[in-house]
Amino acid sequence: MNNLKEKHQASLDAAIKALHERTFYSIFPENPSPEIYGENADKEGREKYKNTLNKNFAELLQESPENWVGQEESPYTQEKLGVKYPFFSPETLINRAEAAFHQWRKVSPSDRAALLVESLERLRSRFFEIGYATMHTTGQAFMMSFQASGPHAADRALEAVATGLEEQTRYPEQASWEKPMGKYSLRLNKTWKAVPKGIALVIGCSTFPTWNTVPGMYASLVTGNPVIVKPHPKAVLPIAIIVAEVQKVLQENGLDPNICQLAVDADDRLIAKELAENPKVKVIDYTGGTEFGNYLENLPGKIVFTEKAGVNSIILDSMNDLDKVAQNLAFSLTLYSGQMCTAPQNFFIPETGVNVNGEIVPYETVAQKLADAVTALVNNPKAGPHVLGAIQNPLTENRVKDMASIKGRSVLDSCQVQNPMFHEARTCSPVIYEVNATDKEVYSKELFGPIALLIKTRNTDESIELAKEMAMEHGAISCGAYTTDPETKERIMDEMSLAGTPVSFNLTGGIYVNQNAGFSDFHVTGGNPAGNASITNPEFLIKRFTWVGFREPVA
Amino acid sequence: MNNLKEKHQASLDAAIKALHERTFYSIFPENPSPEIYGENADKEGREKYKNTLNKNFAELLQESPENWVGQEESPYTQEKLGVKYPFFSPETLINRAEAAFHQWRKVSPSDRAALLVESLERLRSRFFEIGYATMHTTGQAFMMSFQASGPHAADRALEAVATGLEEQTRYPEQASWEKPMGKYSLRLNKTWKAVPKGIALVIGCSTFPTWNTVPGMYASLVTGNPVIVKPHPKAVLPIAIIVAEVQKVLQENGLDPNICQLAVDADDRLIAKELAENPKVKVIDYTGGTEFGNYLENLPGKIVFTEKAGVNSIILDSMNDLDKVAQNLAFSLTLYSGQMCTAPQNFFIPETGVNVNGEIVPYETVAQKLADAVTALVNNPKAGPHVLGAIQNPLTENRVKDMASIKGRSVLDSCQVQNPMFHEARTCSPVIYEVNATDKEVYSKELFGPIALLIKTRNTDESIELAKEMAMEHGAISCGAYTTDPETKERIMDEMSLAGTPVSFNLTGGIYVNQNAGFSDFHVTGGNPAGNASITNPEFLIKRFTWVGFREPVA
Repeated sequence: MNNLKEKHQASLDAAIKALHERTFYSIFPENPSPEIYGENADKEGREKYKNTLNKNFAELLQESPENWVGQEESPYTQEKLGVKYPFFSPETLINRAEAAFHQWRKVSPSDRAALLVESLERLRSRFFEIGYATMHTTGQAFMMSFQASGPHAADRALEAVATGLEEQTRYPEQASWEKPMGKYSLRLNKTWKAVPKGIALVIGCSTFPTWNTVPGMYASLVTGNPVIVKPHPKAVLPIAIIVAEVQKVLQENGLDPNICQLAVDADDRLIAKELAENPKVKVIDYTGGTEFGNYLENLPGKIVFTEKAGVNSIILDSMNDLDKVAQNLAFSLTLYSGQMCTAPQNFFIPETGVNVNGEIVPYETVAQKLADAVTALVNNPKAGPHVLGAIQNPLTENRVKDMASIKGRSVLDSCQVQNPMFHEARTCSPVIYEVNATDKEVYSKELFGPIALLIKTRNTDESIELAKEMAMEHGAISCGAYTTDPETKERIMDEMSLAGTPVSFNLTGGIYVNQNAGFSDFHVTGGNPAGNASITNPEFLIKRFTWVGFREPVA
Repeated sequence: MNNLKEKHQASLDAAIKALHERTFYSIFPENPSPEIYGENADKEGREKYKNTLNKNFAELLQESPENWVGQEESPYTQEKLGVKYPFFSPETLINRAEAAFHQWRKVSPSDRAALLVESLERLRSRFFEIGYATMHTTGQAFMMSFQASGPHAADRALEAVATGLEEQTRYPEQASWEKPMGKYSLRLNKTWKAVPKGIALVIGCSTFPTWNTVPGMYASLVTGNPVIVKPHPKAVLPIAIIVAEVQKVLQENGLDPNICQLAVDADDRLIAKELAENPKVKVIDYTGGTEFGNYLENLPGKIVFTEKAGVNSIILDSMNDLDKVAQNLAFSLTLYSGQMCTAPQNFFIPETGVNVNGEIVPYETVAQKLADAVTALVNNPKAGPHVLGAIQNPLTENRVKDMASIKGRSVLDSCQVQNPMFHEARTCSPVIYEVNATDKEVYSKELFGPIALLIKTRNTDESIELAKEMAMEHGAISCGAYTTDPETKERIMDEMSLAGTPVSFNLTGGIYVNQNAGFSDFHVTGGNPAGNASITNPEFLIKRFTWVGFREPVA
C-alpha cells in the first residue's frame, strides 16, 4: 500500500486544496474525445458493454452466489439486458461485511484513501463501458451517460475521499498534555482515533446509478466502514463495474473484497428494507423517492443521508435578453427529459410580465417564448434526441400523459421524438402547463419528468415567497432566478438561503441550473426536505465515524 | 463591534490553534486565589450572591414579564433561595426569538464570535458569585462550583465559539470559477453563506447548570441562531447570571437582547416540551435523563444534541501500586457524591484477583482496599465534606438507601457526613455493593449518585467484554482501566473504541477519570447511547447551520 500512497499523494493533496478554494477542479476529463481517452476507446467500450449482455456478470469477487438475478432493460431498445448478477441473502451480506469491518477499520485513513483513489484511476479505462451501461439502463443520452457516470462521478467520489481524509486527520493522533498546577504539572499522553461506525448501506436510484451512489459509497469506505451497495434493480450494471474494480484493488492489496459488496435484489425479493433495518447497519445513504427516504431517516440508531424529491423553482423578474433566457431554460427542461433532481419545474412569472431591458414584456409573450424555445430544441434533429435521451421508467411517461387532466391551461403538448439510432426508444418531450398561484395543490409536489408549470403570480415578491415556501415545505435542490435589479437579487438570496436552496442567477449560454460541479457546488444543502445530505460538506463525512480519545499519565 | 473584534481576535486565534493541538489550554484560571481574582473577590462574590436572594432577579433585559417564578432551594441549608425570575409563555419566547433571528443572522460570524467572547470576559468578575449560586443549587462543594460553573464552563463556551467561527469560515465567501471548454471558458462568480437553522433551545440540568448549558448555548449563538435557555427549575441562578451578561453585551452593541432569552418554568407549568415541539424551534441541546432525551431525539425536523445517562466502567487488571489506585478511584467515586456524568459506577474485577507488581492480590483484598480508601477519604474532616459536597436531589439519597434491597453483598455502607459549615446539608457518602457478572439487571442501568458496584468477572477478558457491552447498549461517557500489560491495553482501547467510549489508563495522583479538559478531551463521543453530542467536535457546530451557494455568470 505504501506504493499507492506515494502514487496518489499528490492527487489527494490537490483535491483537499481544491475543496477549500472551490474554484474549478476536476481530474477526470469530461470530454470523451479520442485524444484524451484513446483512438479506440469508444469502440472498445461499446464492445465491452455488448459482451456483458445476456450472461452472468462474473467480475465480482463475492463467493458462492445463492442465485443469479437481473431485470434491467434498455429504454432505447426496450429489450432486456440479460445480465445476471450474483444474489446473496441479507444475512450473508451482513455477516461478510461484519467480518470485513474488523480488517478494514484497522487500515489507516491515508491507506484507505490511497486504495480508493487507485480504484478511481482504474475506472478511467472503463468510462466508455460504464457510459453505455448507463445509457441502456437510465435512458440518458450517451454524452450525459459518459460524463455523469464516468468522470463526474469519479470526481465526486474523489471529493468524498479527500474530505474524509482531511476530516480524519484534522486532529493530532497524539499530544502531550501538561497542566501547570503551581508547584508541579499534571502530564498526560493523549491519543485519538477516528473510529468507523460500522456497516454502511448505499441504496442507489434508477436515473443516476453511479453519480448518486459513489459519494456515499466512497465516503463510508474512506472512513473505515464496509459498504453494501444496493443498486436500483433496473440500473445495476454501471455500479457493478465500479464495485468490481474496488474489489480487485482490495484483493490485490491483501484485503477482503467483501469490504465493498454488491447487493442486488432478486426478481422476487427486494432486500433494501431488510438490510436497512438490520441493527448492524449503522450508516445509510439513499437517493430516491421521499416516502422511502422518510422511512429510512426515521429508523432508530442509524446515521442516514438522503437525497429525496423536491420542487425546483425558476423566478423570472427582469433580464437583458429574453430569447437567450428562454433557450437556456428550454435546455434545462429538456435535458434528459427532466429526469434530474436539479431540473426546474415551477416557473414563477408575474402576470404583469417581466422587464426586458427596461421594457415590460407581457406574461403571455414570456410563456410563448419558453414554449417556442422548447419546440425548437426538441425538433432540431441534431440536438433534440441527444438532449432528451429516453424515459427510464414508463411511469414517467404516464405522468406526462396524466397532466392533461390537471387544473390548468396547456401551453405546450408533449410528443414522441424519433431517436435516429433507436427506433424503439421511449421518448417524451416536455409539456408546459399554466396554473394560477392559488393552485398550490398542483405545483407543491415533484412531477418527475419533462413537466414544467408556469405559475402566474401577482408580482416578483409573490414569486419569491412561493418559491421559498415550496422549498421549505416540499424541498428543493436548485433554483434559478433572473433579475437585473440588485435589491431583488439580494432579497432572493436572503429568502432562498432561509429555505436552504442554492440559487443560480441569470444563466444563459452553455451553463445550466441543473449542473452542479464537484469540489465547488455543494449538491443538496441538507437544509430543506429534499434531503439531509450535502455532497460533500464536512458533515457528510464526520457523521460516519466517532472521535474517541485515550489518555495515560506520563510514566 | 469592530472594537470587540480587535480586542478578542488574539483570543480567538489562539483558541482555534488550541483546538487542533489539543494540548493543555485555558484562558480562565481555575484557581480561585486572591492573587488572580483580587483580594476581595471571594467576599464580594458571596455578598453579591446573598443580595440576590429573596427578591426578583431584575438583571435580565426581557421586557414585560407575565409572572415572577422560582423554586430553588439550597442542598446545604435546605432553605428556599427565594429568587424569582420573569416568566414568559412559550408563544412570547418564540415570537421574540423569531424577531431577533432576523437581526442576529445578519451579524457576521466573526462579529458574533467577538460579542460572545466579550460576554465571557465579563463573566470573569462574576465567577465567585456564579460559584456560590451553583453551590446552593447543585450541592457542589465551593471549589467545584467555582471551577465547573466559572472558568471551566467559560473555557468550554470559548471552545464552542472558536469551533463555530472556524467552521463558518472554512470555505471562501466567494470564488471565481472558470471551466475550460476548449475554445472558450465558462466563468461563474460564486458566493457561499453559512445560514443558521433558526430558533435554538437549550435545556439545562440540575447538577451542572452552566458547564452543561454554555457549550450548546454559545454554539447556537455563534452560528447565528437565537437561543432560548430553559434551565432546570432547581438550578436557574448560575445560568441566569450568564444570560444577563450576554444580553447586556448585545444591547450595548445595538442588538436585541432577545437573541438570548432565559425561559424559566413556572411553578405549575413546565414549558420544555411546548418549546421543543414548536415547529419554529430547529435546534435543541439537552442534558438530563435518557427518557426525555430519547423523546427529544425523535422529534421530527429538529437537530438535537443530547447528553443522557450512561454506565461508566472501571476495568482492574494489573497495576504497580494498589493503594494509589484505590485512593484515586475512591476520590472519583466520592467527588460530588458521584453526581457526575463521568463518575465511575461499574468496577470490573476478576474473581481471581489482580496483578500488583507481579503478585496476584485476591479479589477480596482489592474490594476491601477500595472500601477502606473511600472510608478514609470520607472520614477525613479536612477533605471529606469538601469532596462530597451535598446531594442535589432527595431522590438520589433515596436511591442510595434503596440499594440495600438489591441482589448483592454490601461492601461499604453509606453514612451522613457532617458538613462543618452547613449542619443541615443533605450528604451521603458512597455505598459499595458486590454483584456477580451474571446480575446484569443490576448493573446495566445508571444508578445516579454515590453508588459503586464491584462486578466479579472470570477474568479481564470478561471485564472488557462486559464494559464494552454496557457502553454499547446503555451508554458510557468515561471508562478507567488499570493494566500494565501492553496487549491488554491495546485490546481495551480497541474494544472500547468500538463502543465510542474514551478510556483513561492507569490514573493515580491528582488526575481523575471524571475530569474532561476543554480544548483537549472531547466530552461525550456521540458514539453510544449516552448521547449523540460531542463537546466540541466539528459536528457539534456544523449541524447548526447550512451551507448555501449562489452563482452567476461573470458579466
